[in-house]
Amino acid sequence: MSRAMRTPEPYFSRIKELRSEIERRRLDAYFVQDRMDQYWLTGFTGEDGGVLVTPRQVVLLTDGRFDEAADHEAPWARKVLRKKRGPEATIRELRRLRARRVGFNGGHMSVSEFNALRKLGKPIRLVPIPSAIQPRRAVKTPGEVARIRKAVVVAEQAFDAVRKWLRPGLTEREIAARLAYEMRQRGAQGEAFPSIVAVGPNSSLPHYEPGDRRLTETEPLLVDWGARVDWYGSDLTRVVWLGSIPAQLRKVFDVVREAQARGIEAVRPGVRAAAVDRAARQVIDKAGFGKRFNHALGHGIGLVGHEAPRLGKLSTDVLEPGMVITIEPGIYLPGVGGVRLEDDVLVTETGHEVLSTLPLSFA
Amino acid sequence: MSRAMRTPEPYFSRIKELRSEIERRRLDAYFVQDRMDQYWLTGFTGEDGGVLVTPRQVVLLTDGRFDEAADHEAPWARKVLRKKRGPEATIRELRRLRARRVGFNGGHMSVSEFNALRKLGKPIRLVPIPSAIQPRRAVKTPGEVARIRKAVVVAEQAFDAVRKWLRPGLTEREIAARLAYEMRQRGAQGEAFPSIVAVGPNSSLPHYEPGDRRLTETEPLLVDWGARVDWYGSDLTRVVWLGSIPAQLRKVFDVVREAQARGIEAVRPGVRAAAVDRAARQVIDKAGFGKRFNHALGHGIGLVGHEAPRLGKLSTDVLEPGMVITIEPGIYLPGVGGVRLEDDVLVTETGHEVLSTLPLSFA
Repeated sequence: MSRAMRTPEPYFSRIKELRSEIERRRLDAYFVQDRMDQYWLTGFTGEDGGVLVTPRQVVLLTDGRFDEAADHEAPWARKVLRKKRGPEATIRELRRLRARRVGFNGGHMSVSEFNALRKLGKPIRLVPIPSAIQPRRAVKTPGEVARIRKAVVVAEQAFDAVRKWLRPGLTEREIAARLAYEMRQRGAQGEAFPSIVAVGPNSSLPHYEPGDRRLTETEPLLVDWGARVDWYGSDLTRVVWLGSIPAQLRKVFDVVREAQARGIEAVRPGVRAAAVDRAARQVIDKAGFGKRFNHALGHGIGLVGHEAPRLGKLSTDVLEPGMVITIEPGIYLPGVGGVRLEDDVLVTETGHEVLSTLPLSFA
Repeated sequence: MSRAMRTPEPYFSRIKELRSEIERRRLDAYFVQDRMDQYWLTGFTGEDGGVLVTPRQVVLLTDGRFDEAADHEAPWARKVLRKKRGPEATIRELRRLRARRVGFNGGHMSVSEFNALRKLGKPIRLVPIPSAIQPRRAVKTPGEVARIRKAVVVAEQAFDAVRKWLRPGLTEREIAARLAYEMRQRGAQGEAFPSIVAVGPNSSLPHYEPGDRRLTETEPLLVDWGARVDWYGSDLTRVVWLGSIPAQLRKVFDVVREAQARGIEAVRPGVRAAAVDRAARQVIDKAGFGKRFNHALGHGIGLVGHEAPRLGKLSTDVLEPGMVITIEPGIYLPGVGGVRLEDDVLVTETGHEVLSTLPLSFA
């Protein structure tokens, strides 16, 4: 565990970028608290952690439980094992580093913690800098894209296994449990987020928790799921019918499929995320279902379920090569059912690549 | 959805208690942000929520996705559907309520949110009151205890099913996946927390994430798991050997079993949590393993994995009837393995009741 050890990639580049932000903002240090920010920046996976970055040093605060993990994952950082959570160790290190102006993400620090740090740390000043890390996470390295690809494959294989096992009478909860199991058996750490498994009218609720409703031959089954593999997640949605599709939902399905195709076509570097949303939304508006598509077209994926960029009407984000986003239009008919189709799409240098490969319908 | 509808139990009593806190602190309102606090106080399960309680009113802030849930779960509260997250709706309601001094839990509000509310809400004053709800959640009603009992039963039945299926060669990850599946098939919403499934030397790491190590006949398998049923969780730990127990770990097992028995015996109303910790810890100290038991003896369970009270050396908590706690001593030998035994215990009027029923060893 030599402190002189060189910081490996991709962490070296990321820390360098953060350091240029530190310089631009005239900070002495930046305090990273979010676990996934910390992982992205250093590779350290411990549950208890905090990272202090200065122009010359990287300090990793954790506790004894993650001592071994710290040595293994970020041996090039200065490791500080603290006896308890709380402001003491952080302030001690900031004093040792002679840091006076310290940036942090105000969305990741509680009022209690802020007050405790401020009280103990006088005259250290904590400066909220929200955009030091999160927007940078939106553009993925090839290594990150490779992990998302794996998460897509695992999710798709698990879905195929579950689809073959589906039969009338299974509850939403049983199907969700089976899907999680199949993903984990294929190497997933777990679900990327709690799956939505919704039968019949439940499929018209965009955020539904699986319950006791049973699968039938005449109602749609909507599944919105993803796998987390090596910390990176996928996010897919399909609708399945065991029998034939009722005419009303067949029409809706066709509109959603067309909207998704238009959305995906619009994905390329330099395009505004709001324009991609509009490309898909226009199809649904024209078909007369505009009010039944009441959420954004998509969002970035990666270390958490929803990351930057946001693909909504009011988004100011612009797509860049390396972003991985979902395209997921939906139409929801209360009391009847909903159709959403969701795929994961990589923004490439010249356009896009759809990472997911499942067919849209399973008739 | 009549506003004149009477608040049902147990929410009526809980809101009444919070109102006496509001009065004692000379507040005009209290802002509840934590999802589980909100559920405990009102029964509302929506992911997006915020509750404002005044001496006369209860306002539930949420968005359209949870409109139906709000009507169903808390029809007696005033429902406000907001178009977007952010301070606007909260401040609008606080103004309508003529609230000037508003309590909140500083551990549940981010610095960003606090600054946004303060800026928009002038001259409304936000006052951190950390202990308005969380300590009250420690004492369970009979209805809550009944749900924890169910969560224990589901966890135990799932464990039994998995134990019968165990064979050499299974990975930790496969075992964890199966355990989660068996719990969900029995009605659990999911794992109460990510299970620890650790083979051999991995069992000496108190916080271990299941990986690719395979079960053998000669090494211990440590499983720390729980089910979440109807929002309430259980938390159990057992160690299993497929073959015979090596002598060194047999000795450790006997010490841990004795420590757990002494800890459980010490549980009764009025006793200090630190004294219960000491009762168990003394056994391990005397056997010479004191340094190998490097965590607290236990903690409360309920709506989240770790709740009040805390059973540690430095805890100032005192046990009360209705508290449900874990008793989980452990001894961890680095490179060899660990033994932890964990049961869930209800503090009764006269002593205690152990809610879990699994045998301690499966020889």
